[in-house]
Amino acid sequence: MTADNFADRLLAAIEGKQSHVVVGLDPDFALLPSEIRDAHPRAQYAGDDEMHEACYREFLTALLDALTGEAMAVKPQIAYFEALGSRGYALYEDVVTMAKDMGYLVIGDVKRGDIGSTAEAYARAHLDVAGADAVTVNPYFGADGLEPFLRRTRESGKGVFVLVKTSNAGSADIQDLELSSGETVYRRVAGLVEYWGRESEGSRGYRSVGAVIGATYPAQGAELRARMAGVPFLVPGYGAQGAKATELSGLFDEDGTGTVVNSARAILYAYRKRPGIHWLDAARLEAQEMRSALWRAAGRGR
Amino acid sequence: MTADNFADRLLAAIEGKQSHVVVGLDPDFALLPSEIRDAHPRAQYAGDDEMHEACYREFLTALLDALTGEAMAVKPQIAYFEALGSRGYALYEDVVTMAKDMGYLVIGDVKRGDIGSTAEAYARAHLDVAGADAVTVNPYFGADGLEPFLRRTRESGKGVFVLVKTSNAGSADIQDLELSSGETVYRRVAGLVEYWGRESEGSRGYRSVGAVIGATYPAQGAELRARMAGVPFLVPGYGAQGAKATELSGLFDEDGTGTVVNSARAILYAYRKRPGIHWLDAARLEAQEMRSALWRAAGRGR
Repeated sequence: MTADNFADRLLAAIEGKQSHVVVGLDPDFALLPSEIRDAHPRAQYAGDDEMHEACYREFLTALLDALTGEAMAVKPQIAYFEALGSRGYALYEDVVTMAKDMGYLVIGDVKRGDIGSTAEAYARAHLDVAGADAVTVNPYFGADGLEPFLRRTRESGKGVFVLVKTSNAGSADIQDLELSSGETVYRRVAGLVEYWGRESEGSRGYRSVGAVIGATYPAQGAELRARMAGVPFLVPGYGAQGAKATELSGLFDEDGTGTVVNSARAILYAYRKRPGIHWLDAARLEAQEMRSALWRAAGRGR
Repeated sequence: MTADNFADRLLAAIEGKQSHVVVGLDPDFALLPSEIRDAHPRAQYAGDDEMHEACYREFLTALLDALTGEAMAVKPQIAYFEALGSRGYALYEDVVTMAKDMGYLVIGDVKRGDIGSTAEAYARAHLDVAGADAVTVNPYFGADGLEPFLRRTRESGKGVFVLVKTSNAGSADIQDLELSSGETVYRRVAGLVEYWGRESEGSRGYRSVGAVIGATYPAQGAELRARMAGVPFLVPGYGAQGAKATELSGLFDEDGTGTVVNSARAILYAYRKRPGIHWLDAARLEAQEMRSALWRAAGRGR
């Protein structure tokens, strides 16, 4: 294992914590525990955004601290931070730093993509300045729009997860279109992802250019796993979006690795389904159960 | 014309300023006039980012002020602002506000896109909080990933430009793939854009859901124009990326409207090719020439 290959760090994090769990950080004021909201009365702040930022900061700091034993990575979703404007953007950057300091791998869920010179600015913004270990990117612009991100997988030990088949129903609109070759758009994108990652391979056969595959499409995911040896998968859509661990066994490789699974709301707001215990204990229990269920699904234990 | 339909506001802005020119705001420290850089010596700032932000702010404020007679809209490219972190993000928001106050339409070039709940956060961040008149979005997620943006075209007078055929060479990788139906991916996306915009029509036959069509593909653009009556086009890639006005006549409708064209570097850094005059005069002259050339290409005058 070299410390500066993302794929190596990803596999090491799975082994180190015996966990495939990525916690999605999707802060939503309406869903926060009342304990958090009550501690920040509106009258103490100049505006709602300032209050929300203070609540998110306390909520996420406590969560990160509580889940170090269960989750090997976190995936802050930048959209929820941007919704608070520049104050939220600053919090996003702080959360990335904080999570790295606590030993998590940090996957910035930013879904950026643009033409070359602009993509370079985005790659700099998110992998160099904000400093996430990896980010999600959108493939619609093609290879030259991703090259600044890909370069950082080869040169700076960073990772990239390219959208292939997303977890939402509307993903059919474009991703499932059938090409004249007979394959679907998302399968073609999967092929491109394999190609784009070829120079980013670490010491254990995995590349640092991965694929985002929605947990809500486990059959397609298993098929892609079989065809995409060495491509790490980031699988969102677990929990609140409906996918279960037992359905995901086909997404792991024969060593039970290569795939990490994200859950956001089901963990963050677990207290809503587990009355009578502290919200942090609820989140920890939910993450623990997810960790065990995935570990079994990956063929790794009882 | 209703004030709260984006398409109506777009056409009115073209008529009002007799201009199809959108100025792309892509600040790049290495390309700034020495006058700007010299006014902000490094020693006065805690770090490079702080200095760059001060330079960008002065540069963009002066530019916006100088180009009100030539450009009907500006398109701040958020990637260049994010590259300065939260300080840059705050400047992006300030630039949007400043440009609106000066009478420009503001198209936030953010290229966002995600699943429904996250897309709602992005739409809120960029159309409500930052407050751009319109934004660019990425279609890869399909309809449900765009709905929060589309809703704002129907309910809040906002506009959306969906990536269809982008200006870069790599756009071929996915956008030009041939479907089993015989059409290309970008043509299918164009059809979806028409469909997604059907409830956002203003009083002059144009919808508030537009398409991004690279100026570097004028033949494809003309073909799309013929098939997409009522869909406004945002055309980047003019100037520095190589496209010329005479090649773009096929992108305007028979009234010489419906399309706006973006140039960033060729205007912002025009002083580099026009020695001996002030950088603001160089930018104004470049924008003036572009305005006249497009006005003629649209069949609107000498």
